[in-house]
Amino acid sequence: MKKYAVGFDLGGTTCKVGFFETSGKLLEKWEVPTDKRDNGEHIIPNLAENIKSYLGGKKISTDEIEGAGIGVPGAVTPDGYVNRCVNLGWNDKRALGEQMTALCGFPVKVGNDANVAAMGEYFMGAGKDSQSMVMVTLGTGIGGGIVVDNKLIVGFNGAGGEIGHIHVDDDETETCGCGNKGCIEQYASATGIVRIAHRMLLGESIDSPLRAMEHISAKDVFDQAKAGDELANKIADEVGKRLGKMLAIVANVVNPEIFILGGGVSKAGHILIEKIRPSFEEYTFHACKDTRIMLATLGNDAGIYGGVGLVLS
Amino acid sequence: MKKYAVGFDLGGTTCKVGFFETSGKLLEKWEVPTDKRDNGEHIIPNLAENIKSYLGGKKISTDEIEGAGIGVPGAVTPDGYVNRCVNLGWNDKRALGEQMTALCGFPVKVGNDANVAAMGEYFMGAGKDSQSMVMVTLGTGIGGGIVVDNKLIVGFNGAGGEIGHIHVDDDETETCGCGNKGCIEQYASATGIVRIAHRMLLGESIDSPLRAMEHISAKDVFDQAKAGDELANKIADEVGKRLGKMLAIVANVVNPEIFILGGGVSKAGHILIEKIRPSFEEYTFHACKDTRIMLATLGNDAGIYGGVGLVLS
Repeated sequence: MKKYAVGFDLGGTTCKVGFFETSGKLLEKWEVPTDKRDNGEHIIPNLAENIKSYLGGKKISTDEIEGAGIGVPGAVTPDGYVNRCVNLGWNDKRALGEQMTALCGFPVKVGNDANVAAMGEYFMGAGKDSQSMVMVTLGTGIGGGIVVDNKLIVGFNGAGGEIGHIHVDDDETETCGCGNKGCIEQYASATGIVRIAHRMLLGESIDSPLRAMEHISAKDVFDQAKAGDELANKIADEVGKRLGKMLAIVANVVNPEIFILGGGVSKAGHILIEKIRPSFEEYTFHACKDTRIMLATLGNDAGIYGGVGLVLS
Repeated sequence: MKKYAVGFDLGGTTCKVGFFETSGKLLEKWEVPTDKRDNGEHIIPNLAENIKSYLGGKKISTDEIEGAGIGVPGAVTPDGYVNRCVNLGWNDKRALGEQMTALCGFPVKVGNDANVAAMGEYFMGAGKDSQSMVMVTLGTGIGGGIVVDNKLIVGFNGAGGEIGHIHVDDDETETCGCGNKGCIEQYASATGIVRIAHRMLLGESIDSPLRAMEHISAKDVFDQAKAGDELANKIADEVGKRLGKMLAIVANVVNPEIFILGGGVSKAGHILIEKIRPSFEEYTFHACKDTRIMLATLGNDAGIYGGVGLVLS
């Protein structure tokens, strides 16, 4: 094993870059603006230039780099092809790993960003030393990543871990962004929580500080719930009930050692787990009832850690 | 790779034994009665004696055996421990692989029977040459097995692929054998189909040949549906709707290349897939909509083929 590895976490605004020892120790991190002009053609050459320039400044040869991993906001097939990334301006299918490897001078592996973040938590975050793990990223939408025995379950069409679109409610009348009805994303993403809050503010007559707010956020709901507000707790219960059911279903499929909750919504903290646990235990198979549910620990750095995780897996 | 391998499929009445070339070619198969006296203590010594006597008769040395795999009707942990098998009289946790390896003189791997049957279809049946596969065994209950890149997803507590207890119906009032309500097993197992048939015979006024039958079986329902009976088709539609929803959910978790339907209910044939497909496509994520759903091809031999699959994986 060589001494260094690199993790890239490519987003629509910037690409986070982390320079690591292969032990998993983060030495330095920075960001490179994502230049989306010309259908995003400059993004990859810019990244390769940036890391080569960094290594040059440090007098580190590319021979000392074990490799790099990059997370991208789109579907990645098991053979490393990226199939469109609308956020980056890429409309074609491209062999991103091959292209970056050629430009960087060391091997580069590619993964979907939610999957790569899961890899980060698995190798160096809350999932460290676990045999298998499912990460649930609760952001504007819901993403996921599944790691079993050091390997991501990427899926035949790159849709492994697309757990945000698991059906959890037969009575939903509104449509999810994906076109289906009753997906967990409609209840437990940041936008989903706000949707449920508005629905319950209309349907319930209880008073609540939430009623005085012009724009309610998911954070407001959990802050008020923690402060003891009855209606905020009812909203959080509804969210937790659906999320617990979804985790229960996922446990019946892959039976992971642990679940890890990440993304902005997970900043609510342990109250989220308290709201999930009863419904998780109600719906899951008896052998899975003790599965641990934990909070992510790497925050926004999960992606760069996961890039290095790809190298080491 | 040595020349031969052995597959065992251990059930409560008999153990099926298959003697194979490591190419996957089945040379001979037979059954050994399962002696459950004395808490099942004789079962494993009997099997070891049986295979050693067979090899002796053929003048084949244990040195020519690559190994064996055995499927057992209970949960098996990733490290090869069997945790109780009520059907065999085993009430303890035992290192079955170690015990059989010592008695047989060649390495023996252990798996849950539904998982091992999945391995058989993956290596030598309908799933041959696929990257990833989920097998659904529709018998008295519903079992499952998930194989990704030649490896079974066994699960941290041996409950990987326990897809029979995925929740698919929020309005169910009766309780599943597992203690939960609304598991797919309550709708699409052989007993579940009969339950739905009785429920719909009561709830619907349409005439049907099913009404004249003293004991309706799952086979009767599909036979009458194929013959064009309206009520039988309505029952099969209800079954297919729930099963399609379950497969859709599983696709959103592991996104397999193919689904394979096995077990007694799958003998209904292609009508089962026709009844599943619309609801599968309705509930699954768009990237998974084209996932193939196929019928198992190895029948009752899936277990012995899978035993050899364990050796080769």
